[in-house]
This record gives sequence, C-alpha cells and structure tokens, in this order.
Amino acid sequence: MTREAMDKKIKSQMDKKIKIVIWNEFVHERENNALGDYIRTIYPDGIHRHLTHALAAQDLQITTATLQDEAQGLPPERLDDTDVLLWWGHCAHDQVEDALAERIALRVFRGMGLIVLHSGHLSKPFRRLMGTPCRLRWREVGEKERVWVCATGHPIVQGVPESFVLPHSEMYGEPFDLPGDGQVITMSWYEGGNVFRSGMAFQRGAGRIFYFSPGHETYPIYHDSNVLTILGNAIRWATPTAIVPERVTPSPVSVEPIHTANPLANLDTSALHQ
Amino acid sequence: MTREAMDKKIKSQMDKKIKIVIWNEFVHERENNALGDYIRTIYPDGIHRHLTHALAAQDLQITTATLQDEAQGLPPERLDDTDVLLWWGHCAHDQVEDALAERIALRVFRGMGLIVLHSGHLSKPFRRLMGTPCRLRWREVGEKERVWVCATGHPIVQGVPESFVLPHSEMYGEPFDLPGDGQVITMSWYEGGNVFRSGMAFQRGAGRIFYFSPGHETYPIYHDSNVLTILGNAIRWATPTAIVPERVTPSPVSVEPIHTANPLANLDTSALHQ
Amino acid sequence: MTREAMDKKIKSQMDKKIKIVIWNEFVHERENNALGDYIRTIYPDGIHRHLTHALAAQDLQITTATLQDEAQGLPPERLDDTDVLLWWGHCAHDQVEDALAERIALRVFRGMGLIVLHSGHLSKPFRRLMGTPCRLRWREVGEKERVWVCATGHPIVQGVPESFVLPHSEMYGEPFDLPGDGQVITMSWYEGGNVFRSGMAFQRGAGRIFYFSPGHETYPIYHDSNVLTILGNAIRWATPTAIVPERVTPSPVSVEPIHTANPLANLDTSALHQ
Amino acid sequence: MTREAMDKKIKSQMDKKIKIVIWNEFVHERENNALGDYIRTIYPDGIHRHLTHALAAQDLQITTATLQDEAQGLPPERLDDTDVLLWWGHCAHDQVEDALAERIALRVFRGMGLIVLHSGHLSKPFRRLMGTPCRLRWREVGEKERVWVCATGHPIVQGVPESFVLPHSEMYGEPFDLPGDGQVITMSWYEGGNVFRSGMAFQRGAGRIFYFSPGHETYPIYHDSNVLTILGNAIRWATPTAIVPERVTPSPVSVEPIHTANPLANLDTSALHQ
Repeated sequence: MTREAMDKKIKSQMDKKIKIVIWNEFVHERENNALGDYIRTIYPDGIHRHLTHALAAQDLQITTATLQDEAQGLPPERLDDTDVLLWWGHCAHDQVEDALAERIALRVFRGMGLIVLHSGHLSKPFRRLMGTPCRLRWREVGEKERVWVCATGHPIVQGVPESFVLPHSEMYGEPFDLPGDGQVITMSWYEGGNVFRSGMAFQRGAGRIFYFSPGHETYPIYHDSNVLTILGNAIRWATPTAIVPERVTPSPVSVEPIHTANPLANLDTSALHQ
Repeated sequence: MTREAMDKKIKSQMDKKIKIVIWNEFVHERENNALGDYIRTIYPDGIHRHLTHALAAQDLQITTATLQDEAQGLPPERLDDTDVLLWWGHCAHDQVEDALAERIALRVFRGMGLIVLHSGHLSKPFRRLMGTPCRLRWREVGEKERVWVCATGHPIVQGVPESFVLPHSEMYGEPFDLPGDGQVITMSWYEGGNVFRSGMAFQRGAGRIFYFSPGHETYPIYHDSNVLTILGNAIRWATPTAIVPERVTPSPVSVEPIHTANPLANLDTSALHQ
Repeated sequence: MTREAMDKKIKSQMDKKIKIVIWNEFVHERENNALGDYIRTIYPDGIHRHLTHALAAQDLQITTATLQDEAQGLPPERLDDTDVLLWWGHCAHDQVEDALAERIALRVFRGMGLIVLHSGHLSKPFRRLMGTPCRLRWREVGEKERVWVCATGHPIVQGVPESFVLPHSEMYGEPFDLPGDGQVITMSWYEGGNVFRSGMAFQRGAGRIFYFSPGHETYPIYHDSNVLTILGNAIRWATPTAIVPERVTPSPVSVEPIHTANPLANLDTSALHQ
Repeated sequence: MTREAMDKKIKSQMDKKIKIVIWNEFVHERENNALGDYIRTIYPDGIHRHLTHALAAQDLQITTATLQDEAQGLPPERLDDTDVLLWWGHCAHDQVEDALAERIALRVFRGMGLIVLHSGHLSKPFRRLMGTPCRLRWREVGEKERVWVCATGHPIVQGVPESFVLPHSEMYGEPFDLPGDGQVITMSWYEGGNVFRSGMAFQRGAGRIFYFSPGHETYPIYHDSNVLTILGNAIRWATPTAIVPERVTPSPVSVEPIHTANPLANLDTSALHQ
C-alpha cells in the first residue's frame, strides 16, 4: 500500500464515526418549580446534553433529540441514519406515538442498537420489543445501590470493577417482567433489601438492545464514571456490523423439484393472499 | 378418607375441566365462491367447530368464538374464564382490535395458555407477545411436508412418531423472526427445499405459548391424527397451574433498614410519580 | 365406569407415587469434633433423613442414599427406578465417581428430575450437566439472606410469599458461572452487600433440573417452611411425564427419495464408522 | 497525532493478528488404503493444512496442531496464546485426553473462541462445554444438502446468500441434543428428508463457540466458497475482546456492614472449607 493510499484509508476510517442519537423526553428538567430547580443543578441543559458531553469520543458522532422536536425528534430519514439510539423517558411515555415505537422496532430488527435508560423500561419502544409488560417494584428514598458485574469479560463491562456503589439511587426491584433470553450483565443490591437485574442484553433480529437501570433525574448517576464506562461500552457493543435491507416476505418458487401434484391447481386461491 | 369423601373428591376432579376457547376469524370458510366451496368440503362448519369435535375429551370443556361474535368473541368476562385459548386467523388479522390483543397478552402473563395455529404467526396477539415481526417465507403449491420431533420426551410430542408426513401443505420457511428463548419442539422439511421451526414453545410471565405451523384452510391437515395429538397435548401442557392475580407495581416501603439519608427529603417529588 | 373400575383406578393412582432418592455425602454430620456436635443439634440423623421426614407426603415415596453405601448409593438398577434425585454434597465432591456422574446425567436426559442443593453447585453431576464451572463467591459469617420470588406464578414458588428471610445463612454471590438458558426462579439479597440467582431451573434433554442455594449444614435452613415448600414444589415440577428410552444414534435409510448419485458408491467407507 | 505516531499506531494494529490454531486429529487423511487415497485427492496434506491456506488473510496468524504432536498439539503455553481454536475430529475422539478437553473449556471460559467442525459434535471439548450428549442422526450416501441462513444480519453470515447447496454431503439430522441457549445461525435441508440446526452459536463464560456441521473428509466441502466465508466470519466473531484472568473463587469480606450476630462465632468451622 502506498503512503497516499494508506493515508486515505486511515482518514476514511477516522471519518467513519458511529452515529448516536440520544433521545430525551426532556420534561422534568424544564419544570418550573422547586423540583425542576433541583434537577437543573444536576443536569442544567437536560440529561441528553449532559450525556452528549460525558460520552464524547473520537469514534462517536453524537446528536440529541427530544419529544418536543419535529416528528418527536426522529423523522424517518434521521432514524434511518442512526447506528445506536439511547432512550430516556419517564413521565411522557404515553405521548410517544405508537408509529414511532414501531419504526424504532423495525430499525432495531434491521441492525440498529438500542440502549434503554432507567425508567425507559416502561417506554413504548422497549415494551414493544420485549413483548412483556416490563413491570418492576420501585422506591425512591435515596438509598444506596451496589451494582455487581455478572458477565465477567463481556465487552459492556470492560474496565468496570467487580462491584461499585451509587450512594443514592431509586430502587428498582424484582420481579422484573422480561422474556427469557436476556443475558444478565449486571445485578443490583439495594440497602432497603431488594435485588434487580439492572443490566440486561438482548438480541432482536439483527439488532442489539441493552437495558441499564441506574440513572435518574434527581441523582447525579450519569456523572458516575463506572456508569459512563458502561454506557460507552454498550454503545460500541450495540453498533451494527451492517444494516440489513428491510425484509420483505417473499413467496418464493421452489428451489428443489416438487413431484407432488397440487390438489388446488385448478382453483383460484388468490383470495387467500391479497 | 371415607368412601363418601373419596367419591366427592373424584367427582369434583372429574367436574373440573380445562376451559378451552377455540377462536377462528371464520372468513375463508364462509366465502361465496369456488374457493369457499372447496374449503367447506374440508371444514363444513368452520375450522373452530371441526377442532372442537376432533379434540373433544373428558377433561376438556371446549367452546368456540369468532371475529363476528360480540366483542370479537372474547368479552373480558369470558377471556377471564379461559384456561387455554387456541387462535386461528389469516386474512382478517387487521380487524382484531388492539385492545383485545392487549387483553389476551395480559391474560397470558397471568397464566392462560395460548396456542397459535398456522397463519396466526402474523396475528396481533402473537406478534404482541413475541415482540418480533414473526415473518417467514411461504409458498402454496400443495407440496409435501415432513414434520420432525426435535424435543424427544417433551409432553407436547407424547405419542408422536419421530417424523410424519403431511402429503400436501403450505410451505412456511426460514428465516422465522422469533425471540431467542423459544424451545424447538418440531422442525419441518419441505419437498421444495425449505426448512422451518414448525413447533415452538415459549413462556411469557406465568403463561405458556405454543406456535404450530401445520394447518391450513385448503388442506385437511386438522384431520391428521398426529397433528391432533400434538394439539391435544399442547392444550394440557399449556393449562395453567394457577392464574396469578393481576400485577400491580407497588412502591414498597423498605424491608431492610436504610441508614443512608435521603438527599431529597425536603423536596416535593410527587410530580415524578403521578 | 363401574364403581369397581373406578375404585381400581383410584387405588392405582394412589399407589403410583413419585420415587424420590435423597442423596447425601453424609460427612459433616458424622464428624467427631465440636463442629460435628453442633451440626448434629440441627440434623441429628443427617440432612438426608431430616429432609425425608420434612418432605414426607402422600404422593411421594422417599428413600435415601449416601456416599458410604454400596455403589455410592446409586447402583444402576436403583438410579433407573428413580423419578427425582435430590443431591447434597460439599467436602466430598471429588470422591464421587465420574461414572456415577455420567450415569446421573444420562438418566436426566431420559427424563429424571434432579434437584441440586446448596454446595452441590460444585458437585460432579451438576457441573457435568451445566458444562460450566459453576463458580460463585461465598462468605460464612451467619449474615441475613432475603430470598425474592422472580418467577411469579411458577409451580416451584406456589404458596411462597414475594420475599422471605433466612436469619442466618452462608452468602453465595455473583458472578455465578451458568449457561444462558436457566430460568431465574428466585434471587437472594445478602446483608453483606451481595446478590445471587439462588433458584435456577433448567431443561436438559427430557429432564428438568432445579438448583437452590439456601441450605447449609450449620444453619437450620431445611427447617424453614418456605424452603421446604419450594423443595416440595420442585419435586413435583421435576417429576417426569415419561422416561424416554435410552437414545441410540441411528444411521437411518432416507425417508425421501434421493436422486443424487453417491460419489463414494464404489468405495469401502466402513472405516469411517467403526 | 503526528505522522510518526500515526504510522506507529497503524503498524501496531497491522501487526496485531488474531492467533488461530486449526487442530485436526489427522487420521483419515493418512490411512493406507483406497479410502485414504480418495481422501488425499481432496485434502492432500490434511484438512488442517487445507484450511490454513483457504482461510489465509492479512489479520490472521494461523498455525496447525494434530493429535500426533507433542501434548496432543496443545501444550498449556500454546493454548494460552490462542485466540480462536478450530477443532476437527472424528474417529479418534476417545484418544484426546480428558485433561486437554478440560484445559480447552477453561480457556473458553476466559475468552478464547472455539469453532467446532462437522463430526466434532461428539468431541470431548464440545460435549464438555455443552453438558449434553450432542447426539444426532446421520447417513452417508452423498445426498444433496441445502443450507439456509436463519440469523439474517448476523456477522457469521455476512456475504452468504439466503441459501446455498452442497451437492454431496453427509446427512446430520435432528434431534440434535443441545442446551437451550444456542442461537440458530443456519439450518440445513437434506434431499433424503431430514433437517438440522447446522450452524449454532453459544456463549460460555467470556468465550464464544460456533458449531458448523457442513464439512467432511470425503466430500470437498471445505473447498466451497460459502462454507469458507462462514468459517472466516466465525473466526472474527469468536475473537476475544479480552482474555479475562483465571477466575479464583474468593471468600470476600463483606462490602456492606453486617449487623447480624454470627451464631457460629465461637466454633472452628475451618473444616468446612479445606
């Protein structure tokens, strides 16, 4: 390879960044009351802008979207240009359009990564993709949470100690309604006596999904370095190898010879497949 | 135990039948054309009534429901009294109300069994519960299908030979969009060169789901004794041990003492949990 | 059915009990020192005899076996007559013969249930069947354990409250090396800050396996009513529908016509399959 | 970054190749008879050397090992320097030392990739890692096999058409004894009426395992371009992100304060944990 060719190749690799969209319903951070004031001491510009800065890296091209944006922040052409979507929602799940949740699900099946944050367990895209109600127990008294790495060696927990503490957290507890094929990446212990599968990885079609419960609007959890390491790792892990074409369901001609006579050969069956 | 007590106990067990509802969209069988005429030679009174007779047994109380019935055949009080629901649909999936699919899903989470037949792979209740598009390939030329038992010893295939033939069948082929936690009960070979996971078992919440692809409106597949054995077995397998109460998501007080001070103790956070 | 026929049928059902063997290495309870003395205050005749009495029920025929018995307690004819095997071992795992672990595994594949207790996570039969090292963290300081039901509605936790406390327990903590297809039935919280998947259900071949960590030689955990309820439920859940014949790997003649010419038709290939 | 720094980084990445060992029992190819003569027309220097050439690429450092080599080809220091191991065995499974199978399993748990070829389904390392007997049906009459991609978009099938034909193959058929957490990557259709999960992906500890059935000593299947694409993809997919340290099972001091008094505080329990 010539120096010029090599330079060109490197530049092209350096230019090829993972396209991330951090979506935030962006409601709590704008509330005009004492609670809003408090939240803004932690996330002055919203959780989405905070994460954009906190996760910034050479290989990532991060943009943000909110519920208030046009097309709820994810018009088709933008979603179709997204490699990994991070989703934060809580009190406005119902306002997200069913059609948007459906488009997100279809994009995941084609290969897009999806990282669902904290209270996003009840978001439309996550419940749509799990097929289960995704319910859990919760308690908000600022108790201590200890996160344990269960999948030692998994890319999502590279560089994370075997356990770490979040001094104040909202409790999310079992039972957690999930399908059976998730991989347990982390589990959490709570001071008040509860346990939880706090980091769960799924494959749906060609796409990867990671749910991570630590994170809350009133605690500075997205300032924690271990939490940020996990989210950064999860982004790389969920990055698609390739986006597969939208699937059509073909009715193919047979690829092997069929010797059996068709009993319906003389019947118009088109009505069955309109 | 006295003879009288014993008699009473037996009678009560004999009276306790599994409550089955066979749901059919019931469209093809009523079509007023040559195709409808042909279908009626196989299922004169509809697939639902045929199955009712073919699956009749001492321990089963089978009733039927159709799309044309009031509340699409499954008003809440009826669904809430159903142990196992069989679902046949094809051309009228879109007409099933989203709210009905949702109620069926919630009943499954509470323990109801669900058996999804043939083209029901694209039905709203099944796709709702899988979270995936459930697409497949298909071809309808009356080719031969051979069904193989993969889960030897599983209750659903008790009494079924290691493989059996359906002389004419609609081809359903891979790739089949499913989540990763299904158990492969049967796989099918098609004369025209395709393969398919034709019998798949799932657990969702407290409920069991079985999808079985063989079965079609224009072939007499529900007259086949092996197919009927599998469906009968699946009904018993999917029968709930118990129906669990509708889950509420409680915000419990802690069960262990919390020593950490709540940093939000003086803040009104009720807005977070309306 | 005549009264006589009915009586006969009932009697036969009543006579058909589930055949349980409780296997115990039976070492700690016989130690001739202060520790042995202490253990004998809890399990005077050994854990196996204690469980035999504690789990006694109309539908169960429970016998015991120990490492010291002939053929390590499970000669082939006895194992082949066992429906569900309970296994307790700790310090003598290495003394169990590989051939016995192999025979147990093969019996499980044919349908026998296996319930692995506490420190049996490192036993030869369990590790043989999991294929993983089954390592965990542990600490023995008599701390409190709280067990949470995660699989609400599962037969194994019928009658068990959403959580219950064991006042003193040995800590078993994550990460727990297991394959990915276990169903999480219970999870445990420990006072000292750890979490654990304490009740895990598996299917291997036609057999069911349940691992349950609570239980220890120096704490009276097998006197706890919730623990006994879980073990009793697990026995019924793991009872085989049927024991399938030992599988042979046949080289079958084709079931469909093969038109392709065999390029090796004139070659003696018997050496490939001795 | 300066030009010099950049050059250095590129060079280091280019020098960092994936270390592959292709292991072959190497028996059939050396047989001194007509069958051996025939096999040598396909694989003159053995399957291992053929694959070394066929899979050669810039990012791979491929070496070979055979049963006849010292330490059966995989002394500890060599295995500990391997990223991905390919395994071909058939008639000499029994000669592989149990200790070697165990070391391979432990290396997989630490992160090494393992690709098991064709008749390796009965090899000691694969059965050790699956925990199941891995039995299947087979027939060797040179019939046609058609391989279907089931996991569209998975890295292992990048560049592979939706189905492809192997004109002559040994039939491997269901039921295939596997644990439930494998992902179905490909399924095969056989002219003689059988079906098979021919490409299966597993995670065990930090390591990835891929089983792929197409491949045989008497058919030129490892000359097929689709088969080679799949094997090449599988190597990259199975390459470890990192090799994790050998796990020790620590008995940690508690990370949270324990208020419960230890009932055994005055008892010497060291005998329990020798």
